[in-house]
Amino acid sequence: MRLSKKSKPMKKITRRKTKIVKIGDVKIGGENPIAVQSMTKTDTRNVKKTVSQIKKLAEIGCEIIRVAVPDMEAAKSLGEIKRQIQIPLVADIHFSSDLALEAIRQGVDKIRINPGNIGNEERIKAVVLAAKKRGIPIRIGVNSGSLEKDLLLKYNNIVTSQAMVESALRNIKILEKYGSADIVVSLKASDIERTINAYRLLSEKVDYPLHLGITEAGTFFRGTIMSAIGLGILLEKGIGDTIRISLSAPPSEEVRVGWEILKSLKIRKRGVTITSCPTCGRTEINLLELTEKIEKATQRISKDLHLAVMGCVVNGPGEAKEADLAIVGGKKVGLILKKGEIIRKAPEKKLFQEFMKELKKLAN
Amino acid sequence: MRLSKKSKPMKKITRRKTKIVKIGDVKIGGENPIAVQSMTKTDTRNVKKTVSQIKKLAEIGCEIIRVAVPDMEAAKSLGEIKRQIQIPLVADIHFSSDLALEAIRQGVDKIRINPGNIGNEERIKAVVLAAKKRGIPIRIGVNSGSLEKDLLLKYNNIVTSQAMVESALRNIKILEKYGSADIVVSLKASDIERTINAYRLLSEKVDYPLHLGITEAGTFFRGTIMSAIGLGILLEKGIGDTIRISLSAPPSEEVRVGWEILKSLKIRKRGVTITSCPTCGRTEINLLELTEKIEKATQRISKDLHLAVMGCVVNGPGEAKEADLAIVGGKKVGLILKKGEIIRKAPEKKLFQEFMKELKKLAN
Repeated sequence: MRLSKKSKPMKKITRRKTKIVKIGDVKIGGENPIAVQSMTKTDTRNVKKTVSQIKKLAEIGCEIIRVAVPDMEAAKSLGEIKRQIQIPLVADIHFSSDLALEAIRQGVDKIRINPGNIGNEERIKAVVLAAKKRGIPIRIGVNSGSLEKDLLLKYNNIVTSQAMVESALRNIKILEKYGSADIVVSLKASDIERTINAYRLLSEKVDYPLHLGITEAGTFFRGTIMSAIGLGILLEKGIGDTIRISLSAPPSEEVRVGWEILKSLKIRKRGVTITSCPTCGRTEINLLELTEKIEKATQRISKDLHLAVMGCVVNGPGEAKEADLAIVGGKKVGLILKKGEIIRKAPEKKLFQEFMKELKKLAN
Repeated sequence: MRLSKKSKPMKKITRRKTKIVKIGDVKIGGENPIAVQSMTKTDTRNVKKTVSQIKKLAEIGCEIIRVAVPDMEAAKSLGEIKRQIQIPLVADIHFSSDLALEAIRQGVDKIRINPGNIGNEERIKAVVLAAKKRGIPIRIGVNSGSLEKDLLLKYNNIVTSQAMVESALRNIKILEKYGSADIVVSLKASDIERTINAYRLLSEKVDYPLHLGITEAGTFFRGTIMSAIGLGILLEKGIGDTIRISLSAPPSEEVRVGWEILKSLKIRKRGVTITSCPTCGRTEINLLELTEKIEKATQRISKDLHLAVMGCVVNGPGEAKEADLAIVGGKKVGLILKKGEIIRKAPEKKLFQEFMKELKKLAN
């Protein structure tokens, strides 16, 4: 991408040094790419529906998938799900160490346990030993909505960042005690402050890879904004080795938002990036519609290309210079520019078509 | 809001100390609320359409409005627009100091000039003196897409954060030289790195209030994520006194996103906030639909209320405790909780209706 090559950032993101953990064939931590993950919203016992959802998510960039395991029937479906998919499978376990043990037997690539509800140390021990035997990692998934009761008491029923970190550290100790080193940790609160403070605190204390997320972040609209801010702040500080966006929306949106966050921060690349102007009283083409059309038409292009769709000559030529392909609008007409050089002029009606023609040449 | 009272953030946002600037009757800088602004997308010469758009934006929380002034006819429309609206009017000027002078004569509350294209010092001087006489502030709006030609040369045609800051500082000096102290500055680049680096750099050098934005951020989807991350990082550092979200989307979306960013960081409050879970294989009610319905139905409630819509007992009770009103889903049924206490149980079909009934009591 020309822009990133040309305009060197003043302050590069330096990633925190973490241990490397293998989840199936995906490595997280260290210098491995920050992985995008999601969670299915189907009934896990319905293998067909669950597999179908996972396959669709994998296609759009989901690199690790987690499924809820609410009962033994769900646990027993995991092996079959695993056999039918290509990306690593993570079992999400609450309340029962028996479900965790069954999930491990079924061959999942990682399990997530919630320290607040999985039971006493004996139960955790059994899970740790079984996971160790299979060589699969465990995520300690602390969540502000379900902290251990004794910690709630200690902190006067107020779930602070410190309380969340204490929960994580306590459980890390238990896992370490039984010889586990393949640990991932998350500290999700339903607000930005607690979440970022908890991750900051923990990242100073341990070097296990961190799974980032804002829990219960809300609808597509609110959840996207909450997650972009919270994860953006952490990622910019070099904190975070894998991300999951929690949205009350289809899981495909979680994956799209996750990728867009990483792309926005130039941490990873994937497909087309479109710079486009908000339009104003100067704009004389229907730029909003044109941009949406281009966004839709380019979703499946995997090549890293930087496009610009600009309404007028104020910032148009400047942005066009930094883009692989650009439109600069005029009066019911538009210029098409390749790396800043005008290659064509087209009437508004033909602008989309002409632009896409040029884009296809670049995309191949 | 109960949550913010109960769970004290470990690290409060401390705002950078800035001068106070008055834009009409809205003060920005100092300890004044971070104002949400937008820009019209109508033809400014069409007073009726422009006023109608401004009124709609003001209704949903737009506190300052800017309009493009591409020609003299647009400039001469400003007085009439100003008379018909209640929020401060800002004239956006490019290429011509004559348009700036006319806008000032028409009684606008602030003008924005783009140092890259407004002309030589003599022209800027004339504008500064006219603005000073009227007592209106000037925003120096540096934009990565339209930097001064000599700075582009100096920086080898690469628009760095430093080049942008140099442009701002040079123009601040000119304004100060002619006695202006009512200065607002923006340093918008079309990517996050350059934008945050430029604002960070400048905020160490001057104490004028800063207008934040990522320019040409893109469509609703990409622009929202880019802006949430970029502005989120800056706001969390205490940088920023007013914000504008640039989206290739209707301006109402810009205002909604702006507010949601401030709400997410608990910087300002406005209406209902909904914590809701992403759902998973545990969820036995149609929570995604229910949450979207509640989000829509509560958009007009101005009282600051915290709601939670949760799918199951994993984090449901925990989140419900922190919410004014909550739903925790079960098998085709839901509990309604007020400040964590169960007040009702309702079948899924009646859940929305019963929840809204309780909410109306709280909202009044």
